[in-house]
Amino acid sequence: MREEMIKSILADLNSSSTDIEASAIISTDGLTIAALLPGNVDEDRVGAMSAAMLSLGDRTAIELSRGQLEQVLVKGDNGYILMTHVGDEAVLTVMAKSSAKLGLIFLDVKRAIGEITDIL
Amino acid sequence: MREEMIKSILADLNSSSTDIEASAIISTDGLTIAALLPGNVDEDRVGAMSAAMLSLGDRTAIELSRGQLEQVLVKGDNGYILMTHVGDEAVLTVMAKSSAKLGLIFLDVKRAIGEITDIL
Repeated sequence: MREEMIKSILADLNSSSTDIEASAIISTDGLTIAALLPGNVDEDRVGAMSAAMLSLGDRTAIELSRGQLEQVLVKGDNGYILMTHVGDEAVLTVMAKSSAKLGLIFLDVKRAIGEITDIL
Repeated sequence: MREEMIKSILADLNSSSTDIEASAIISTDGLTIAALLPGNVDEDRVGAMSAAMLSLGDRTAIELSRGQLEQVLVKGDNGYILMTHVGDEAVLTVMAKSSAKLGLIFLDVKRAIGEITDIL
């Protein structure tokens, strides 16, 4: 039930821009809570890499006096991965094309997180 | 000599915005090439965390089909760390306040990298 509610928010997020290719809510230990991924994207791989990046990001933010970690953005020449904390227990991971307008994606992600926080 | 030339580019970068607090050029194995850091920021710590984030970012970009890694951004509630590849051998790490305008910092970083690439 909660999974379906979260999936419906992820569906809204994915359809908010054609540049968003995939999104997933993952527990901070790397397990999928809900995901809307294209067939060629492995769920476990997204979970594992998101949890690893967030964990190292947490430590980097603390070591370099940036406070509590909110977000990690990875930019490759073939697109973006944006990982955002949802409370203390979960992460929203979004994969977007390189043509994506980052400002718009930050906005859409913020809105989705507000809605997911109410459910989790 | 090259260190001084790079330091002068970093000085321009740091002075381009009052929101940029520190910048450094680091080898991909985490050793400082040139740095302009405030006294309370440890050079070795910046080097170690930048190299670790870039290395995991490289792997994340490949595993999730985002291509060759260009940049990793860490956002904490107390500011940003932006790590950008400079060729294959080095990383430009910039630390900025949470009030920073990201678009402006991306631009200034891009310009600095163009100049540093010519020197390295």
